[in-house]
Amino acid sequence: MSAQFTLAELAECCGADLQGDGNCRIQGVETLDNAAEGQISFFNNPRYRRFLQDTRASAVILRPSDARDCPTNALLTDNPYLAWARVTRCFAPVLELGKGIHDAAEVDEEASIHPDAVVAAGAVIGAGSRIEANAYVGPNCVLGRDVLLGEGSRLLASVVLMDGVRIGRECLIHPGAVIGADGFGLASDQGRWEKVAQLGSVTLGDHVEVGANTTIDRGAIHDTVIHDGVKLDNQIQVAHNVEIGENTAIAACTGISGSTRIGAGCTLAGGVGVVGHIELADGVHVSGASVVSRSLREPGVYTGGILAMPHKIWQKNIARIKQLDSMARRLKELEKALSRLEAQPDDNEK
Amino acid sequence: MSAQFTLAELAECCGADLQGDGNCRIQGVETLDNAAEGQISFFNNPRYRRFLQDTRASAVILRPSDARDCPTNALLTDNPYLAWARVTRCFAPVLELGKGIHDAAEVDEEASIHPDAVVAAGAVIGAGSRIEANAYVGPNCVLGRDVLLGEGSRLLASVVLMDGVRIGRECLIHPGAVIGADGFGLASDQGRWEKVAQLGSVTLGDHVEVGANTTIDRGAIHDTVIHDGVKLDNQIQVAHNVEIGENTAIAACTGISGSTRIGAGCTLAGGVGVVGHIELADGVHVSGASVVSRSLREPGVYTGGILAMPHKIWQKNIARIKQLDSMARRLKELEKALSRLEAQPDDNEK
Amino acid sequence: MSAQFTLAELAECCGADLQGDGNCRIQGVETLDNAAEGQISFFNNPRYRRFLQDTRASAVILRPSDARDCPTNALLTDNPYLAWARVTRCFAPVLELGKGIHDAAEVDEEASIHPDAVVAAGAVIGAGSRIEANAYVGPNCVLGRDVLLGEGSRLLASVVLMDGVRIGRECLIHPGAVIGADGFGLASDQGRWEKVAQLGSVTLGDHVEVGANTTIDRGAIHDTVIHDGVKLDNQIQVAHNVEIGENTAIAACTGISGSTRIGAGCTLAGGVGVVGHIELADGVHVSGASVVSRSLREPGVYTGGILAMPHKIWQKNIARIKQLDSMARRLKELEKALSRLEAQPDDNEK
Repeated sequence: MSAQFTLAELAECCGADLQGDGNCRIQGVETLDNAAEGQISFFNNPRYRRFLQDTRASAVILRPSDARDCPTNALLTDNPYLAWARVTRCFAPVLELGKGIHDAAEVDEEASIHPDAVVAAGAVIGAGSRIEANAYVGPNCVLGRDVLLGEGSRLLASVVLMDGVRIGRECLIHPGAVIGADGFGLASDQGRWEKVAQLGSVTLGDHVEVGANTTIDRGAIHDTVIHDGVKLDNQIQVAHNVEIGENTAIAACTGISGSTRIGAGCTLAGGVGVVGHIELADGVHVSGASVVSRSLREPGVYTGGILAMPHKIWQKNIARIKQLDSMARRLKELEKALSRLEAQPDDNEK
Repeated sequence: MSAQFTLAELAECCGADLQGDGNCRIQGVETLDNAAEGQISFFNNPRYRRFLQDTRASAVILRPSDARDCPTNALLTDNPYLAWARVTRCFAPVLELGKGIHDAAEVDEEASIHPDAVVAAGAVIGAGSRIEANAYVGPNCVLGRDVLLGEGSRLLASVVLMDGVRIGRECLIHPGAVIGADGFGLASDQGRWEKVAQLGSVTLGDHVEVGANTTIDRGAIHDTVIHDGVKLDNQIQVAHNVEIGENTAIAACTGISGSTRIGAGCTLAGGVGVVGHIELADGVHVSGASVVSRSLREPGVYTGGILAMPHKIWQKNIARIKQLDSMARRLKELEKALSRLEAQPDDNEK
Repeated sequence: MSAQFTLAELAECCGADLQGDGNCRIQGVETLDNAAEGQISFFNNPRYRRFLQDTRASAVILRPSDARDCPTNALLTDNPYLAWARVTRCFAPVLELGKGIHDAAEVDEEASIHPDAVVAAGAVIGAGSRIEANAYVGPNCVLGRDVLLGEGSRLLASVVLMDGVRIGRECLIHPGAVIGADGFGLASDQGRWEKVAQLGSVTLGDHVEVGANTTIDRGAIHDTVIHDGVKLDNQIQVAHNVEIGENTAIAACTGISGSTRIGAGCTLAGGVGVVGHIELADGVHVSGASVVSRSLREPGVYTGGILAMPHKIWQKNIARIKQLDSMARRLKELEKALSRLEAQPDDNEK
């Protein structure tokens, strides 16, 4: 982080209003409590208010309504975290990706690599594939035949794109991701499994991010489709023929079964499981570790699962789950019996 | 998909009875609702019956009992999905795997590669390993020492097989799979962990499929064993000394803990967890996201877990889980009290 | 396993007391029931006592209190599994890692490789990285810029370490692990996501083990930190800014969300999910497949989740979860009504 900006420059970069000294020089970003002179921080979560007044940061990004509590220069905005995101990117080291096709890459003669694209050592690219301008194929990536990697998209390292996968523009694919492996299609022949050929592929829109070791399977007939702006964290499994709508974000370790359609603007937290052949409406938000087993047609927050508790308490209570139906029936019987008792004429009142 | 067949040829390939024009030319496969002339489709799930009558497919695979509802040529069979699987494979593009050992592969002098096997660019193969006829080691795969890759088996890309792993014939291993990494064996020395050497390896039978980024650990003393015909989806974890019986199929994101034995002909849906040192009988079927914590000795369907619901409903009800035991006890008390009350002689009847 | 030791040598290696023939030659390890002459076994779990008396092993590691039940030579120790761990390591094949930098590795001119380190075929190492003495970079590993791989640490195959990752001494990283990919940091701009630059990296202490296909993300501002002696199994996800304390062991398929701190000496079983921004105290033990959603400030065992049961039982009972709150309220009403009834003066006693 050897970059350096004036506070006025950062205000412009992140679209915030400057309060204080625009010439103040900022060399880095830090949390409120760790910041030192020359660093910029942000205040978004009220939980950290106690750190605001004592911060030694040279500037803080915060809401106009918090401005009077800020002991130093401020960048004022209604969305401090968004402004923070933009400021962090100013300080991100510029990736030095090299130039052109590395000698130790294996590019098929029938592949087409734009002169401004970079192919790193150990990358293998198959016939018919096309790498567009400013795209980057990192070390030890493998691209099959007829793959398209759109303008400015980057495969960081050891990414595998199987035959026919199409990646849009400005995508970022993290190491170990596998896109376009066969979907899990099997037909039973008296107990033995026969493979259903997976004849579709995978299409990613623009500005899609795919996390480390995430897998997105190719479709059985049509493509699996990930729309523009979708963000996938690490170790997510997307099965064949899934469709994920624009700007949906999915956290790590989530699995989505075949042919399910997830709407736009959804969020799935970590460790979620979604069964196959269902639909989630736009604006559905699923809490961590929940299992979604039927279509969710209304936007809103959905949750499932039982949270960890001290083992003895769990042990004592969880066995009762199997008695729930019987308990509910006995409860009903009691209510009936009690109302019979209460309905008995009271001798005293005769 | 430039392949083309007559309907009579497809009938023979999939073992179905032809109804209609055997000379009809079929160029591809499609769903009932999307099919156009020259394409074949299938009808298996009654849910899609509405698409059958209006399909523009040139032929449909279906059951004899549905034949009269078919508006076009038909292939009749009692197992339409199996016939469909076979037809899709007719239209699968022929993989062009190259020939022999690529110049950019690193094969140890003491490895033995069959002249009809293919080793792609970037593959690394250790001493003592043997690659049999028609086997394929894809780009950037790594094989340790003394690995056996059986006849016709294929490692698609970036697969890792550690020392001593033995793969049978006609297996298909998808990208990023790691077979034969150390099992998680640790002994505690007053809080510090010491490693238990993992001296076994992994044996896969014939016709096994392993999904992308799936991991199968080597055994502690003996091998971890995956029997013939097992199909594993993506991102599955198989711990050391597990044994999986013939023709069992396991969906994505499932984890199987150490020394557990899964029978033959089982299915585990996605996201299942199975604890260690237990046995699942042949013919056990576990629903998605269930946790199996003890041996299941009878075939049948097993399920666990709580499905996602609107967050407010969840919030209101789930806290009660910790009161279940108390509720059950209070219910019993009420029943006793009520029967005491009911047993009281009724004054009226004296 | 061509190694061979006298029993006296093994006693010394594992710190146990010899009972019997110290000159007895041991060629391998086996389970009690499978052992033959020349092999050593161990007895730790009382469940396997029936195998002890009939074992054909030439020696058994066990507790002094079990010595009289041992039909053969014995190594006596209070921690048989620890002694076993040490003995297994005696029989582990010596890894032949090669020497120096392989011709087919790509090492940046500005990287520094210790003369006693080994870099295998297909490895790619970026500028500014330093590989210390006796460290090993296996086939097809990718190291970014400014990576540190400490003395004696080994990356087995296809491991990815992104820019600035620092690995301590004597660590073991299994194939497919990705350390230092971007954390999942996103800010919303009216529904579209903008990336928060991930400016920290990852620091691993000494003697850390990382399983196959496990991912550890780089921190947003500071490093994600894994302390000395931590053992991570396969397919674990560690999000940005997580901190894991010394000697904590975590089993496969567990996910830990961002900024969470796990104490020292903890164990998390397989398939656990831990939400972000919480703390687990030292000595917390979480059972398999549990979801931890709030800080656990006391050591102890914590459990959650519902275990699989026959589907029909599950079906009948699980729907009642949504009625739990209503059931609890009705139960309370019944108790009140009943106590009103019981409080009524009994006519007989007038």
